[in-house]
Amino acid sequence: MLMDGTCFRLAELGETGPRAVGRKAMAVNLSDIAAMAGRPVAAVASVALPRQGGRHLAEELYLGLRDMADEFQTAIIGGDTNSWDGPLVISVTVLGEATGRGPVRRSGARPGDWLLVSGPLGGSIRGKHLNFKPRVQEAIQLHDLVLLHAMIDISDGLAADVNHLRVESGCGAVLDADRIPISADARAMQDDKSPLDHALSDGEDFELVFALAKEDAQRLLQAQPVSGITLVHVGECIEQGLWIEQAGKRQPLTPRGYEHSIF
Amino acid sequence: MLMDGTCFRLAELGETGPRAVGRKAMAVNLSDIAAMAGRPVAAVASVALPRQGGRHLAEELYLGLRDMADEFQTAIIGGDTNSWDGPLVISVTVLGEATGRGPVRRSGARPGDWLLVSGPLGGSIRGKHLNFKPRVQEAIQLHDLVLLHAMIDISDGLAADVNHLRVESGCGAVLDADRIPISADARAMQDDKSPLDHALSDGEDFELVFALAKEDAQRLLQAQPVSGITLVHVGECIEQGLWIEQAGKRQPLTPRGYEHSIF
Repeated sequence: MLMDGTCFRLAELGETGPRAVGRKAMAVNLSDIAAMAGRPVAAVASVALPRQGGRHLAEELYLGLRDMADEFQTAIIGGDTNSWDGPLVISVTVLGEATGRGPVRRSGARPGDWLLVSGPLGGSIRGKHLNFKPRVQEAIQLHDLVLLHAMIDISDGLAADVNHLRVESGCGAVLDADRIPISADARAMQDDKSPLDHALSDGEDFELVFALAKEDAQRLLQAQPVSGITLVHVGECIEQGLWIEQAGKRQPLTPRGYEHSIF
Repeated sequence: MLMDGTCFRLAELGETGPRAVGRKAMAVNLSDIAAMAGRPVAAVASVALPRQGGRHLAEELYLGLRDMADEFQTAIIGGDTNSWDGPLVISVTVLGEATGRGPVRRSGARPGDWLLVSGPLGGSIRGKHLNFKPRVQEAIQLHDLVLLHAMIDISDGLAADVNHLRVESGCGAVLDADRIPISADARAMQDDKSPLDHALSDGEDFELVFALAKEDAQRLLQAQPVSGITLVHVGECIEQGLWIEQAGKRQPLTPRGYEHSIF
């Protein structure tokens, strides 16, 4: 569910904003399917439209929803359209099916697994959060090549989402600060947080982070078999806790890095 | 999708309001499954919560969602929880499966079919709109007994929903004013509309209206095989148009009766 004024500001997005919001509303759900290495099948979309300009807004939103749905062979099969005196709210549900390998959950990581990410992180607020590619095909391809133990898409931030994964798996995780791929957007952020901090704590990158056997991870890292992305080794699963290591020094990592800058 | 201030007013509903809203949000979706004679399987629920009191509100909403989901053996399998500065918005999606007979659509009615409703209509604003029973079991039982050609749940009002059904079916319909079952609530409404007008035009009764062969209809009307409801013959399908007949006089019926009082 995306709400105007909270998840985006329509008034600041300009003419192409509504269509971009439609794309994002579909894309974040497709990313949830990707996180389980599923294949999206169908979607329903519900909206509460502001009365002023609601018709045009609905048409643009629908075009955006369709952009993404078409790209991922997903049928829009229904929904609910309302008008009200509040700001735009849009809620999308995407239904997916597991491939032959079955779904990948958050809960299958074990100590000794390596953690890999599908791309550079941080600073998505500079634009990527409205214009990202859900890693649907990439996840299916990876899950077909190796046995993925656990996976999640990075919507809350690397630290927070790795924490979700390791808590659901009943293990710990340690990230290697020097390996985390930092995006150009993270480096371009002009505030008091370091680029690494942005990569750890910014949400809405919608890259994948996944756990798998060390040998499989090494094989993937060497072969880099998925076109369009570069897999990066960012850490490994351990017995307990959430940690970050830099220059040989290990310290506790706060899951919600954006609340407490750590470096 | 239900929005505070538009579909209900939390401030006026008192202490039990949030739980009732949760029940309604689930029930309206279950009613959509009933309208196709489907069996509900699973639900997802998304909310935008006002920051003030959001936690308590979420808990009460969830209890209401569970009340209805449990009653209809429907699993709540996910969703999305957000806070914002706006009023409560809740969006539910229910997934259902067809029974062996297949789904009933809006589009299968043909001239000569009779139209039956599952209960008295009108005045739901007096309370029923927050406390109705989705006709899930009744629809499955009916569809098992006879071949239903087309069906819809009455959410927009009898006239509007019969119009949806007859337009999708590519035929016409005529309602018999003297047969339409008028609820006690419709009779108790104190405004300038007649009880019949309320029965025709008030929304959110969530009774079923369905089309079937005349012989099957007669059989059902005589046997009244569905416990808890009384089936009523309210009209029939014809070649074209939407009409209402009273004392032998047939006149055009406005689909949205609540905009134009006709009697």
